[in-house]
Amino acid sequence: MAKRVITFGEIMLRLNPPGYLRFVQADELKMSFAGGEANVAVSLANYGLDAAFVSKVPTHEIGDCVVRELRKNGVDTKYLLRGGDRLGVFYLEKGASQRASKVIYDRANSAIAQAKPDEFDWDAIFHGADWFHWTGITPALSQNMQLCCLEACKAAKANGVTISCDLNYRKKLWSRGEARECMTRLMPYVDVIIANEEDAQDVFGISAAHTDVSGGKLDREAYIDVARQLSERFGARYVAITLRTSLSATDNRWAGLIYSDAEARFSREYLIHIVDRVGGGDSFGAGLIYSLMNGMDKQSAIDFAVAASCLKHTIEYDFNLVSVDEVKALAGGNASGRVQR
Amino acid sequence: MAKRVITFGEIMLRLNPPGYLRFVQADELKMSFAGGEANVAVSLANYGLDAAFVSKVPTHEIGDCVVRELRKNGVDTKYLLRGGDRLGVFYLEKGASQRASKVIYDRANSAIAQAKPDEFDWDAIFHGADWFHWTGITPALSQNMQLCCLEACKAAKANGVTISCDLNYRKKLWSRGEARECMTRLMPYVDVIIANEEDAQDVFGISAAHTDVSGGKLDREAYIDVARQLSERFGARYVAITLRTSLSATDNRWAGLIYSDAEARFSREYLIHIVDRVGGGDSFGAGLIYSLMNGMDKQSAIDFAVAASCLKHTIEYDFNLVSVDEVKALAGGNASGRVQR
Amino acid sequence: MAKRVITFGEIMLRLNPPGYLRFVQADELKMSFAGGEANVAVSLANYGLDAAFVSKVPTHEIGDCVVRELRKNGVDTKYLLRGGDRLGVFYLEKGASQRASKVIYDRANSAIAQAKPDEFDWDAIFHGADWFHWTGITPALSQNMQLCCLEACKAAKANGVTISCDLNYRKKLWSRGEARECMTRLMPYVDVIIANEEDAQDVFGISAAHTDVSGGKLDREAYIDVARQLSERFGARYVAITLRTSLSATDNRWAGLIYSDAEARFSREYLIHIVDRVGGGDSFGAGLIYSLMNGMDKQSAIDFAVAASCLKHTIEYDFNLVSVDEVKALAGGNASGRVQR
Amino acid sequence: MAKRVITFGEIMLRLNPPGYLRFVQADELKMSFAGGEANVAVSLANYGLDAAFVSKVPTHEIGDCVVRELRKNGVDTKYLLRGGDRLGVFYLEKGASQRASKVIYDRANSAIAQAKPDEFDWDAIFHGADWFHWTGITPALSQNMQLCCLEACKAAKANGVTISCDLNYRKKLWSRGEARECMTRLMPYVDVIIANEEDAQDVFGISAAHTDVSGGKLDREAYIDVARQLSERFGARYVAITLRTSLSATDNRWAGLIYSDAEARFSREYLIHIVDRVGGGDSFGAGLIYSLMNGMDKQSAIDFAVAASCLKHTIEYDFNLVSVDEVKALAGGNASGRVQR
Amino acid sequence: MAKRVITFGEIMLRLNPPGYLRFVQADELKMSFAGGEANVAVSLANYGLDAAFVSKVPTHEIGDCVVRELRKNGVDTKYLLRGGDRLGVFYLEKGASQRASKVIYDRANSAIAQAKPDEFDWDAIFHGADWFHWTGITPALSQNMQLCCLEACKAAKANGVTISCDLNYRKKLWSRGEARECMTRLMPYVDVIIANEEDAQDVFGISAAHTDVSGGKLDREAYIDVARQLSERFGARYVAITLRTSLSATDNRWAGLIYSDAEARFSREYLIHIVDRVGGGDSFGAGLIYSLMNGMDKQSAIDFAVAASCLKHTIEYDFNLVSVDEVKALAGGNASGRVQR
Amino acid sequence: MAKRVITFGEIMLRLNPPGYLRFVQADELKMSFAGGEANVAVSLANYGLDAAFVSKVPTHEIGDCVVRELRKNGVDTKYLLRGGDRLGVFYLEKGASQRASKVIYDRANSAIAQAKPDEFDWDAIFHGADWFHWTGITPALSQNMQLCCLEACKAAKANGVTISCDLNYRKKLWSRGEARECMTRLMPYVDVIIANEEDAQDVFGISAAHTDVSGGKLDREAYIDVARQLSERFGARYVAITLRTSLSATDNRWAGLIYSDAEARFSREYLIHIVDRVGGGDSFGAGLIYSLMNGMDKQSAIDFAVAASCLKHTIEYDFNLVSVDEVKALAGGNASGRVQR
Repeated sequence: MAKRVITFGEIMLRLNPPGYLRFVQADELKMSFAGGEANVAVSLANYGLDAAFVSKVPTHEIGDCVVRELRKNGVDTKYLLRGGDRLGVFYLEKGASQRASKVIYDRANSAIAQAKPDEFDWDAIFHGADWFHWTGITPALSQNMQLCCLEACKAAKANGVTISCDLNYRKKLWSRGEARECMTRLMPYVDVIIANEEDAQDVFGISAAHTDVSGGKLDREAYIDVARQLSERFGARYVAITLRTSLSATDNRWAGLIYSDAEARFSREYLIHIVDRVGGGDSFGAGLIYSLMNGMDKQSAIDFAVAASCLKHTIEYDFNLVSVDEVKALAGGNASGRVQR
Repeated sequence: MAKRVITFGEIMLRLNPPGYLRFVQADELKMSFAGGEANVAVSLANYGLDAAFVSKVPTHEIGDCVVRELRKNGVDTKYLLRGGDRLGVFYLEKGASQRASKVIYDRANSAIAQAKPDEFDWDAIFHGADWFHWTGITPALSQNMQLCCLEACKAAKANGVTISCDLNYRKKLWSRGEARECMTRLMPYVDVIIANEEDAQDVFGISAAHTDVSGGKLDREAYIDVARQLSERFGARYVAITLRTSLSATDNRWAGLIYSDAEARFSREYLIHIVDRVGGGDSFGAGLIYSLMNGMDKQSAIDFAVAASCLKHTIEYDFNLVSVDEVKALAGGNASGRVQR
Repeated sequence: MAKRVITFGEIMLRLNPPGYLRFVQADELKMSFAGGEANVAVSLANYGLDAAFVSKVPTHEIGDCVVRELRKNGVDTKYLLRGGDRLGVFYLEKGASQRASKVIYDRANSAIAQAKPDEFDWDAIFHGADWFHWTGITPALSQNMQLCCLEACKAAKANGVTISCDLNYRKKLWSRGEARECMTRLMPYVDVIIANEEDAQDVFGISAAHTDVSGGKLDREAYIDVARQLSERFGARYVAITLRTSLSATDNRWAGLIYSDAEARFSREYLIHIVDRVGGGDSFGAGLIYSLMNGMDKQSAIDFAVAASCLKHTIEYDFNLVSVDEVKALAGGNASGRVQR
Repeated sequence: MAKRVITFGEIMLRLNPPGYLRFVQADELKMSFAGGEANVAVSLANYGLDAAFVSKVPTHEIGDCVVRELRKNGVDTKYLLRGGDRLGVFYLEKGASQRASKVIYDRANSAIAQAKPDEFDWDAIFHGADWFHWTGITPALSQNMQLCCLEACKAAKANGVTISCDLNYRKKLWSRGEARECMTRLMPYVDVIIANEEDAQDVFGISAAHTDVSGGKLDREAYIDVARQLSERFGARYVAITLRTSLSATDNRWAGLIYSDAEARFSREYLIHIVDRVGGGDSFGAGLIYSLMNGMDKQSAIDFAVAASCLKHTIEYDFNLVSVDEVKALAGGNASGRVQR
Repeated sequence: MAKRVITFGEIMLRLNPPGYLRFVQADELKMSFAGGEANVAVSLANYGLDAAFVSKVPTHEIGDCVVRELRKNGVDTKYLLRGGDRLGVFYLEKGASQRASKVIYDRANSAIAQAKPDEFDWDAIFHGADWFHWTGITPALSQNMQLCCLEACKAAKANGVTISCDLNYRKKLWSRGEARECMTRLMPYVDVIIANEEDAQDVFGISAAHTDVSGGKLDREAYIDVARQLSERFGARYVAITLRTSLSATDNRWAGLIYSDAEARFSREYLIHIVDRVGGGDSFGAGLIYSLMNGMDKQSAIDFAVAASCLKHTIEYDFNLVSVDEVKALAGGNASGRVQR
Repeated sequence: MAKRVITFGEIMLRLNPPGYLRFVQADELKMSFAGGEANVAVSLANYGLDAAFVSKVPTHEIGDCVVRELRKNGVDTKYLLRGGDRLGVFYLEKGASQRASKVIYDRANSAIAQAKPDEFDWDAIFHGADWFHWTGITPALSQNMQLCCLEACKAAKANGVTISCDLNYRKKLWSRGEARECMTRLMPYVDVIIANEEDAQDVFGISAAHTDVSGGKLDREAYIDVARQLSERFGARYVAITLRTSLSATDNRWAGLIYSDAEARFSREYLIHIVDRVGGGDSFGAGLIYSLMNGMDKQSAIDFAVAASCLKHTIEYDFNLVSVDEVKALAGGNASGRVQR
């Protein structure tokens, strides 16, 4: 029987112009749904796990679309509450070459941001669950969500559920000070910390020494040091960091490291010609969760997670619609992209 | 030199699935901008008037889209303030035959709803203006907007500007009681009252006796009576009422009456095969404003207004992109739709 | 807890040119999935029932699409087998006005047509089920499917499950003689017989006297007589007949009758401006099943079924994506199609 | 072996916004190719005749598109010359309901308008031909084309080829006086004259007495009188007139009459819900040519021609992509538009 | 007068999601037609040769689409038989970067696979022909097709027609053993053998020593050795091999070699940014046939063939829609892609 | 208050197939408007300058589209005359990799080419203006336009307006001899000369020694020499040259140099993955004008101009829809294309 994963957070309507059109050129917007924790749930369901997404969306037809899209991907929506005023929206303009992608958020007052802690029965939710995943976006949504995250973490621990958290700092939602205070309170519950090269600095002031992110050079030792600090400060069993070298909006280098038991493992690095970069970090998180839940060793786990997220960059929209076989084939070294007949 | 009209209200992002797809079938949404008063401004600018739209939209690129779309249509955006948190959104699903169109509003906390009265310099705005148009939607947005409407009406009157108002009751924005109280305070400033067959009842409890709207039968005497009551209660110089017989979401009958100096005139009635019905009432208002500003007599005015709005029903999206010549040709009797080579 | 319905049959890939393009004009085809019994399952799931679809589709990605589409609509796919060589395809060209719609079938050797009887564990399938629905298309697919239908009917009866069957004669799949022989064997198990104005004649030689279908005139007495004959010959508790008057490919009149306990009830007749006519009969069947499962009386049941299928004609693709509330509103008399804000 | 038809005239690039968008709303234009005589050639090729189109288009890739599109439809392009400066363009905005369709021509200086008479070897062209069709548009293009038409008619006659001409008056191309002078010179060669209800008046001052075209009422006797006058003045063996009642841009009534041997026959009249009305007259001409070439009697011929053009109104773009079987089915009375499975 | 080429094989409906969408994301499929031998015929017709395609497609409208598409490209369809049950279909998902393209075949029981040998009159077909091209796919379709290939080769030889064959091994259609047995029987008739880097191994067990295809490194000597073995074993006058280095699904290196008279020539290698890779091998074959038919020397021939197929990779769908001038410009060294005004 | 710029030239309808489709594959064309001087005006208006475009377009709806598109971008259309026969058209096929983009012009007899000198009141036009920009395309349109350019330059000088000119040689419009004669007459008025690597040679025979453009190698000294010659021959204050290395239609290197006061400055060079290359030179011109009008030093000016045009290559259609902030961010070194949230 498939292992059960719970993810908790916001899902939004994502609206982006077709192709590389700028917002001011568009007369239609591609409609999809996205959110850090929903992206992870979808990815895990596609890997065959029993993934449930906990959130709240309005009762109207756009809310229905969310439910249908998750169901389509095999995500359990039993704990997806209905109600509230609105679904958060974000507008995305896809960049190309030297022109960066842009995101405009319109997520204030969403149903989940306004949800009350007593709407969620965490003991019921974690009954039979093996893993709980959330990101730093969820507590950033509202004071209520901070409380919910704390209650969820406690309930998860009480139910013997492993907890992973992607730091995912969003400066539009809260200040670094607010983030640090809240996340410092929550981190002790977390078994697996996931971060990109900037999150640790933004949230905890842990810096990757000697690293110039915008210049794109990555310093392996510095990242190991960041992972070590995160691991030691919060007692996490695993820390995983994504390593992105943004050559341009079109071409990125992409790798990752995992740190555990005082030892780091790096994945191979991929040069990716990007189709859609948004959701890349979430697909890494989902790959990592899958591999750790399936008992892979550190090297296999980071290879799987990075291969999974490499593939995500070739897929439109946030959801990483790949199978375990496809990820394993790439992680196993077949990156030639030859036609499969 | 073209006469100058000021309209004041909200403009929203309108998102609708292509063709007759339901929301739950869509993977893209057509993007346009709409709002009662903006629709009127666009229509009047297309008729060659100097139309300005007063509102507030965010500084981000979606706000830029609003400015660009209005400029494209020749609307003066000098008094379109920039700032605030968000642009209101509405989702529209186009109905067909027995299936009704549906609108989902997501307009709370829009930039205009949150704008402060002191952001608008009404004396500057009405300098050189000939006409001021607003609808019952604007005061329904917020207490601030109620105050703004009152100040705007006072300033307009002080500047010798004619005022028109489309009652446009929106039950999702305020209760009938709230509407009645506020609108009763504002109506005395209004020279031209525009309403559909239900607004007078909803807002002022003035009923069209013996009329069953859902059954679609229209009783001419009853509508004259409603117009007379509106005119007499508030001292309006003109009252105009749109008369829609909704045979189905696809086919409507459409006519109008104007009442002034204790006399009513009906337009001819059109049987319309609908392309897009939203904005139909606004195009009637714009047609009426144009005709009255150009000194047409009652019969010509109502004929122009109804022909203008008849054409709107054949045009996608809210804006009525027709010329004075096209309206006059239809009002003059050429409804055959023969190809113009 | 929602009642459980099992439907059994083929689901195909439906490919149609956009809009009213002819096949020879198309360079893209709209992709959806359809089949009489799947259409019914989707409709019932959208009404809130626990609907499961029993069939077989290949293991490749196009088969995955079927599963995902059904899951999206809330249909239980536990008994949707995977395997076999191919998914059936049909090409549909939408007609307009005097130009008829055309269907090209490419369904031979589909996974379900080649499935073996022992692949289906009917006792497990009907465990906890309340209703079983199939159509005359299923046994027409292959000898194996004839056997499966018989076994399914027997198992359903043994499990106390009510059985409905839509005759749905398809001349491309079998001859009238083959159909009569097989269906005569299966009908005794059926509690609710559904047919259109031609099926009874095609399959059983039961004629609607004095009726000229192509001319479009319907003779109420004749149809009652057909229903009576069907009912009496096979001992069905209910017989329901759809009554279509095809004015053109664009405009149809649509009604239905139900016959039970020697008494017939007709629905009101709708004049429908068609968006997509395919799946119209299936939406009638689903409406009827829903209403009978919910204990509606004959008049309410036929009104619900016909209103449901009226709405289907306004929706693209085969699936009838409407809610119980929407059907009831129309059945209750609100056919004006006015915008719902 | 298929009979051979030659048509001669201009083919243009047709550019129209998708659906019912106005020009000012479009950001893309549907691309097709059209022209009175090319439309007829395509229609006849689709009926199985050996149809050749004589014209001239530039050597660039847009000219290649013309050749490819004609070849696709089975039209012989051996005498389609390559060269000249440009391909004519027309922009089409599709009307709906009371809003008329609009055509903007940009056809001056096209390759065919500037072609020289000595570029066409008419004796070679008419070798083995049975029928020659042209319209009043061709000589209206330029003085050279007037000369070409005359030479072509003479050569056709010399080769025993039957000649048909659709009067097709285009006021943007020449005055009524110019048209009358030129067409009066050419008509004596014509065996079959085709006209709509206005052409005879515009070109020859022959009026349909008591007929108010814009009001849409058709007076059968008046049209017979027009046909008789055309027939008698120019000695044509057949005169055929299309009878359009334009209820709106969406709904037209459509019929035709044929006059020969002092006797007139009317077709049945169709009420058409229009998909694309442009090319309707040409499809009538092609239907008439096909039926006369196949020896149908007057009633059958006019029934075929009108049924053919009725179907054209349901097909996007100018070309009438229907088969003889489809036309015969409709002419034979099956206008119900029922799905053909 | 243009030289005449006959190609013989299957043409299928190709259905692919737009852009880089995965199958499970698509709601429409781009529709085109493709098949190894049809692709070659289209390419050669675009080069100005008289190319005929011999096959069989159903009589329905999708079959009509095949005929029209071939005619559009100037391919002679006189020997394209009509009839049979179905047209083969393949679904294509375009890969990107590290994600491979996928092909799902649904081609069993196609009209051509089921065609009988006596349906083809090879002596008539080869009358006046100069070249005959087929691929290893054709005999793999069915026993009948194996027989047809043999008869066709014999008739071609008897008529003095040069024969080329692209080995094109398809493991879904037959085993390596079956392929070897059949192809060994057919090869002696072949003058020009075309293969990619895997075919010789798959079909004949002829290996390219020291070459690791998936790693992408090409060993020039090894390929010459393969060509020599093929040439010597079957006595072919020319052997040509395509050399693809798949850096990713987006970027490939592409070159070729030709072997004749015990001497090999390599083309230059192109680094291609791929638009659509499918049909790349066929465009090489067509380029080679064109160049050899036009008497080019070995170096010119391989340069032309590789430049032609390089351009194919930049064109959507299977057909290589380029002119001889375009190929020669690239083969001549102008690969800068500068705008041609 | 914003500085005022006048640009003068032709604006055309640009029609291109979607994506990478070839002309012969398209059934729709993307519709936009473009022209060297209009592109510059749009770019400058987007930078916040008061930009007016002087030209002439027809009175029909396609001409309306031009006005609306310019207004949308904030360009002053007061001096955009209406009238004349036609709007010029150009067809663009976007290339990829080794396949070059193609442009087919159909611009003869456009409204602006046929405009008379006395239609333009240059003194009124230059009233309050700071800068005048035109390109070598304008005088190439017609003798009248040569005269207009001369009159415009004289009036600009008389009004103290700075003049810039992009040489922009178009061989389809005039010969090198004609260009040299005319441009030699006009250059003395020009303060800022803009050219690409071929223009100086084509128009004035000034060669970039030792430079092989098609090979893509750029020789910095040679370009400085060309700039020096241009500057010295015509006494221009600034000469700016764009340096394009066309690796393929997909990937270009792009840089620029500015020469003034006997000193040259080069920008950094960008490797661009191209979205749409057309309008690249115009965006450079606009960037240069903006930077010089804002008093930037040579290095800053060339950096701004090249960054601006680098971004243009990532934007669909001719207009460079970027803000000053976006250009400055890139010019300041942030070329990583990271997502901006």
